[in-house]
Amino acid sequence: MKHRVGIVGFRGYSGAELVALLDRHRHAEALLMEHRGDAGHESGLRRPKGPKQVPATAEAVRAEKIEIVFLGTPAEVSMELAPVMLDAGTRVIDLSGAFRLRTPENYTRWYRESHTQPALLAEAVYGLPEFCRERIPGARLVANPGCYPTAANLAIRPLLEAVAIDRAAGIVCDAKSGVSGAGRKATLKNSFCEVTENFAAYSILNHRHVPEVLMVSGLEEREFSFTAQLLPLDRGILETIYFHATNGATAEDLLGIYAKRYANEPFIRLYKAGHVPDLRAVQRTNFCDIGVTLDPATGRAVVVSAIDNLTKGAAGQAVQNMNLMLGLAETEGLL
Amino acid sequence: MKHRVGIVGFRGYSGAELVALLDRHRHAEALLMEHRGDAGHESGLRRPKGPKQVPATAEAVRAEKIEIVFLGTPAEVSMELAPVMLDAGTRVIDLSGAFRLRTPENYTRWYRESHTQPALLAEAVYGLPEFCRERIPGARLVANPGCYPTAANLAIRPLLEAVAIDRAAGIVCDAKSGVSGAGRKATLKNSFCEVTENFAAYSILNHRHVPEVLMVSGLEEREFSFTAQLLPLDRGILETIYFHATNGATAEDLLGIYAKRYANEPFIRLYKAGHVPDLRAVQRTNFCDIGVTLDPATGRAVVVSAIDNLTKGAAGQAVQNMNLMLGLAETEGLL
Amino acid sequence: MKHRVGIVGFRGYSGAELVALLDRHRHAEALLMEHRGDAGHESGLRRPKGPKQVPATAEAVRAEKIEIVFLGTPAEVSMELAPVMLDAGTRVIDLSGAFRLRTPENYTRWYRESHTQPALLAEAVYGLPEFCRERIPGARLVANPGCYPTAANLAIRPLLEAVAIDRAAGIVCDAKSGVSGAGRKATLKNSFCEVTENFAAYSILNHRHVPEVLMVSGLEEREFSFTAQLLPLDRGILETIYFHATNGATAEDLLGIYAKRYANEPFIRLYKAGHVPDLRAVQRTNFCDIGVTLDPATGRAVVVSAIDNLTKGAAGQAVQNMNLMLGLAETEGLL
Amino acid sequence: MKHRVGIVGFRGYSGAELVALLDRHRHAEALLMEHRGDAGHESGLRRPKGPKQVPATAEAVRAEKIEIVFLGTPAEVSMELAPVMLDAGTRVIDLSGAFRLRTPENYTRWYRESHTQPALLAEAVYGLPEFCRERIPGARLVANPGCYPTAANLAIRPLLEAVAIDRAAGIVCDAKSGVSGAGRKATLKNSFCEVTENFAAYSILNHRHVPEVLMVSGLEEREFSFTAQLLPLDRGILETIYFHATNGATAEDLLGIYAKRYANEPFIRLYKAGHVPDLRAVQRTNFCDIGVTLDPATGRAVVVSAIDNLTKGAAGQAVQNMNLMLGLAETEGLL
Repeated sequence: MKHRVGIVGFRGYSGAELVALLDRHRHAEALLMEHRGDAGHESGLRRPKGPKQVPATAEAVRAEKIEIVFLGTPAEVSMELAPVMLDAGTRVIDLSGAFRLRTPENYTRWYRESHTQPALLAEAVYGLPEFCRERIPGARLVANPGCYPTAANLAIRPLLEAVAIDRAAGIVCDAKSGVSGAGRKATLKNSFCEVTENFAAYSILNHRHVPEVLMVSGLEEREFSFTAQLLPLDRGILETIYFHATNGATAEDLLGIYAKRYANEPFIRLYKAGHVPDLRAVQRTNFCDIGVTLDPATGRAVVVSAIDNLTKGAAGQAVQNMNLMLGLAETEGLL
Repeated sequence: MKHRVGIVGFRGYSGAELVALLDRHRHAEALLMEHRGDAGHESGLRRPKGPKQVPATAEAVRAEKIEIVFLGTPAEVSMELAPVMLDAGTRVIDLSGAFRLRTPENYTRWYRESHTQPALLAEAVYGLPEFCRERIPGARLVANPGCYPTAANLAIRPLLEAVAIDRAAGIVCDAKSGVSGAGRKATLKNSFCEVTENFAAYSILNHRHVPEVLMVSGLEEREFSFTAQLLPLDRGILETIYFHATNGATAEDLLGIYAKRYANEPFIRLYKAGHVPDLRAVQRTNFCDIGVTLDPATGRAVVVSAIDNLTKGAAGQAVQNMNLMLGLAETEGLL
Repeated sequence: MKHRVGIVGFRGYSGAELVALLDRHRHAEALLMEHRGDAGHESGLRRPKGPKQVPATAEAVRAEKIEIVFLGTPAEVSMELAPVMLDAGTRVIDLSGAFRLRTPENYTRWYRESHTQPALLAEAVYGLPEFCRERIPGARLVANPGCYPTAANLAIRPLLEAVAIDRAAGIVCDAKSGVSGAGRKATLKNSFCEVTENFAAYSILNHRHVPEVLMVSGLEEREFSFTAQLLPLDRGILETIYFHATNGATAEDLLGIYAKRYANEPFIRLYKAGHVPDLRAVQRTNFCDIGVTLDPATGRAVVVSAIDNLTKGAAGQAVQNMNLMLGLAETEGLL
Repeated sequence: MKHRVGIVGFRGYSGAELVALLDRHRHAEALLMEHRGDAGHESGLRRPKGPKQVPATAEAVRAEKIEIVFLGTPAEVSMELAPVMLDAGTRVIDLSGAFRLRTPENYTRWYRESHTQPALLAEAVYGLPEFCRERIPGARLVANPGCYPTAANLAIRPLLEAVAIDRAAGIVCDAKSGVSGAGRKATLKNSFCEVTENFAAYSILNHRHVPEVLMVSGLEEREFSFTAQLLPLDRGILETIYFHATNGATAEDLLGIYAKRYANEPFIRLYKAGHVPDLRAVQRTNFCDIGVTLDPATGRAVVVSAIDNLTKGAAGQAVQNMNLMLGLAETEGLL
C-alpha cells in the first residue's frame, strides 16, 4: 500500500518536479489537487497519462485519505490553505516562504505583508533535515526551506559551529540562480529575450531569504552580505562564499569539519581541497556539493556550495521531509 | 537639418531597434511617441539620455513637424492610429500586419478579425524595396513586410520569375525564428524556462505570414508548405527552402539568376555554390543572405535564406523604406 | 545475478548516458572499459563513486564474463574493436555508423573511407526494434541506428507501408539537432561562442545518415531531401517532415495508421490531430513522439517527429537492444 | 588620409572585434596581419569584402607605413612579435598579458613562465586611460589591460583614493564573464554542451588578472579576494564587489565620489543609488557601468561594475588607446 499525498500547485516548476519525483517513489502515490485559478494546460498527447486529479479541498483530503499535502503555492495562498488542510486531518509540507520565519514581525519585515496565521507560524518546523531532523517526523506543518538558504546554511553552519570563521570580518555570499527559481509565471523580466545572454543582480542585501540564513546559522545581519543573481539557465544555484578562516586553518581543516559533521548525511558531497562543484554536478539531483579553496598565507577562504534549486532547493527536499514524516528511508525516491 | 520622424511602440523590440538605428542616422532624428498603456520602464542610469518624448497624437505630429510616423504597434492599434496620423498630415510606415494584404476578406481569413480601414488597406504600398521600390517614394502609407515573408520572397521570387522551380512538386519553406519575433510581452510561452533548451513548431500550414508570400511570389496556397518554429535564441530568421529545379539547372545556374536579379541590391548577399549562411552572418545587419545547394543528379535543391528579424525583418527594412520616402540614399544608417 | 556488460567510450556523451541508464537498470551492471587515448578526467569529488574500470581487451571480457560490449567509439575504432570483442566470446552493440549499412560500397560512398570488416558488416543486425525486433535477440553484432534516421524512419515507414504518401512529390525531412549529437570533442565549430545564439545547416542533401533512411524506408534517394541543422541546445532532435498525402487522407487517417502499427510499441507516443511535440516532451526519455498536421483541401501534410538524440537516438535504444538480446523486458531501465 | 594600423590575431574574438570597430572608424584603416599558424577560415560569401591582408612582418610594417600594430595574440607570441614590430618603427598595443605587470618576477609568479623581454616590460605603459591617460600618447608600447581588472579597478580605485573603503575588512570581487573572454580556440571546457546550462568558478584566489588590480588599486593581496566564473553566454563581465564603507558613508556619498572622479570620463556611466547595471546595459559598448547599494545601518556596500569583455575589456579600450596615441578624439569610433 502506497501512502497517498496531494500536490497543490502541480503546474508550477516545483510542483511539476514533485510530480516527477513521486512518480519514481516506491511508497508514495501523488494526487494532483486543483486550486482555483490554475488554468489548465491541455496535453497534446493522444493518451496522456498522469496522476488522479481532485480539488484542493478538505473534502478531497478526507475522501482520498491523503496523509500529506504539499503546497507549491505563493505564500499568501499557503497561509489560506494550510489551516484548511490541517483541519481536514492531513499534514502539510509548504514550499512557500509563509511558515519559515519564527515571528510575524520578522515575516512582515522581510515579506512586507502581515502574517495571517501566527499560531501556525509558531508551530511550523523548519524542514532542513541536516539540522532539524529530529523535529520533522512528528511535525504537522513543515516549512520547506528556501533554495538560497539551503545552499548557504549547509555551507556555513558547520564552520560556524566549529568556530572556523572569523565572524568579525563578515561573510559574503554571492548567489546565482537559474530562472526556474522565480517560478512558472509570465513576467517580462523572466521572458526569454530579457534573460538570454544577460546576467543581473537583484534584491541586493535585502533578499527575503536572508532571514532564513540568519535564523539557522545564528549570524547577525551585519555579518552577512548576500546578493542574488539571475543566471541565463533553467535550474541550479551556486553560491560563492567568502570569509576569513580562524587560527591558520587550511582547506583540509575546513573539509575535515564538514566531513565530520556530515559523515552520515546522504545528500552532502565534498570535494578535494582546491576543487569546487559546478552546477552540472548537482542538476537533477538532491545533492548539495561543497568545495573549499583557501589561501593559507592570509586565511582568505572561498567555499562554493551548489544545489539544484528545484530538487534540494524545493521538491527534492520536500520529498526528503515527506520520507521523514512517513517513517520511510530518507533517501527513498531521491537517489 | 534632420528630418523628424516619430516612433510609436518604441519599447517593443522592433521599436527599440528603430530607436537604435535612427540614433546612427545622419539625416533623420527620432521622437518617441508615447501611446496609452505603454507603461514606462525607468532607467537606473543617473543621467539617462535619449530622444525627446511626445504623445502619439495628431497635435504632436503637427507641433513637431513630424514627416513620418513608424507604428511599432499591434495590428488593431495600427488600424486605429494610422488614419489619425495620416489626417494630421504625416506619412506612416506600419510594422504590423494591418496593411500588408490587399483585401479585407484576405485579412479576415488569416487574422481572424475584420479590417476597420479598408480604404487605407487598398491605398497601402507593400514595403519590400527589392520588388516594390518604385511605388514607395510616393506612398503615404507603407506596410512594412513581415519577417518570415521577407526572407521567403527574396529567395523564391527570382527563381519563379526565371521559371527555375518545378511548381508542380511544390515548395517547402521550413522557417526558424528567434524569440524576439514574438514581440516584447510577458507570456508563459516565451518565458525563459519554456524556451531554453527547447525547440517547437507552431502555426503549421496556417501562419498569418503565408498570404504575404503568396501575394508577392504569385504561388498558389497548395504549392507552398510553410512551418514556423521557435529557436532558443534572441534574434534571427533562417529559412530552409526545398524544391525541384527545372531543366537540369545547377546551383551555379540558380545563383546566376539571383546575381542578375540582385545586381544592384545593396542588402542581398549571395554564397558560393554549396555554401549557405548561418544566423551569425546576418544578425544585427540589414542583409538577406542566400545560399544554394543542389543535387544535379535529381534536381533537388535547398536554398537557405537568412535575415535578422528585427533588422531586415522589421526596423531595418522600415528605415530602408523611410530613406526611399525621404529621397535619401537607401542604405543611409544601415551599413 | 546481474548481467555484466562493458562500455567502451564511456566518457563520450552517448557513453556517459549509457553509464547513467545502466546505473538504474535492475538486471544489468556496467563496467567501464578503458581504451587507449581516452585521457582521464579526474573527478573533484572526495569520494567519487562509479562502476569498476577495466581495459578494453579480450582478456578483460573473458575475466569479467562480460556478456555484451557497447562500443561508443568512432566508426574506425569500432571496426577495429568489434572483431576483437566478438572473438573473445562476447556480443557487441555498436553505436557508431560502422555496421549500419549493408554493403562496403554503400559505406564507402557515404563515409568516404573503405570498410575493413565486410564480413561483420554483412552479419550485423540493424537495431531499430520497432522494425527489426525479431532478429535482435539472436544477433552477435547489433548496429545501433543513427539518431536522425531513428526519428525519420519511425515517422515515415508506417505511412509508406500504408501507401499514404504521394512518393512522386517527394518527402522533405528538415532535421534539427542539439549539439551533443556531434559527440564530446573539442572543435571550434562546437565551441560555445560559435553555437550560442546561432543556427546553421550542414551536410545538406549528403548527410551520412541519409542511407539509413533509404535502407529502412525503401525510399529512393531522389524521393528524399534531408537537411541537418545545429540547434543552440544540448540534446534533442526534432524533424519536420513534409509530403503530400494520398487519396484525400486526413490527419486522423494518418494517426490511425500510426496507432495501428505502433499499438504495442512502448516507446512511441502519438499526438492529437493538429498537435505536435516539442523537444521538451522527449528530452531525457526513450520516447519517439509523433504529431500530424494536414491541410485536407490540398493534402499537404507536416509530420513532426521528436526524440532525445542521446536516449532513443543512441544510449536508450542501445539499452533497448540489450534488453532484447538478454531476454529481458524491453522497457527495463527505460521508463 | 587615414592612419594605417595593423591587426595580428584578427581571427580571435578580440581581433575580430577590433576589425569591426575600426571598420566604423573615420580616421584609421586596419590591415590584417597574417601570422604563422593562423589557419584561414574561408568565407562562403561570393564576394567577401574585408581589409587588405599582409604578413605580420617588419617588412610589411615598413612597406605599408603602419603606425600602430595591435597584437591580439597569446602572451608568448606577443613577447616575440612586440620587439620585431617596434624595431620596424611602428608602435604597439598589446592585448595579451605579456606587458601588463611591472617586473619579470611578478610576471613569472602569476603566469608561471619567464619573461623574455624585461626591457620592454619596463618600458610598457599600462593602457587604462581613466588612470594612466597622460602617459599613453607618448608610449611606444601600450599594455592593454585585462578585462577583469578593467571592471574592478574602475570600481575600486576612486573609493580607495577617497578612503571610503574599510580596507581592514577586505574587499571581495566576485567576477562573472562570458565565454568569449577565454578566446577563440577549441577546448572541451569551452564546448557548447559543457557550458550551456552550467556555471562554474575557476582560478579561485589565484587568477592571473589579480596582480593588475593590486598594481592599479594599491591593495595588498590579503585585502582582495577574487573569483572568476564562467557564465553561459557570449560576452560581458559583471563584477559584484563587497566591502564595508567607512565613516557612515551612504550610497549617495559613494556615487558622489565616482561622479567627481569621472566627471569628464566619456565611458563611465553611473546608476542611481540602489540601482545596478545588468550585462545587457553594456554589451557591444565601450562603457563601464557602475551602481551602488549600501545598507546605512551597517555600512555593508555592494558595488556592481559591468563591461563588455571584448569592448572596454579588450578591443574597445585598445581603440581608445589608439585614439590617444594618434592624437584623435578619445571617443572616435566608440560611441
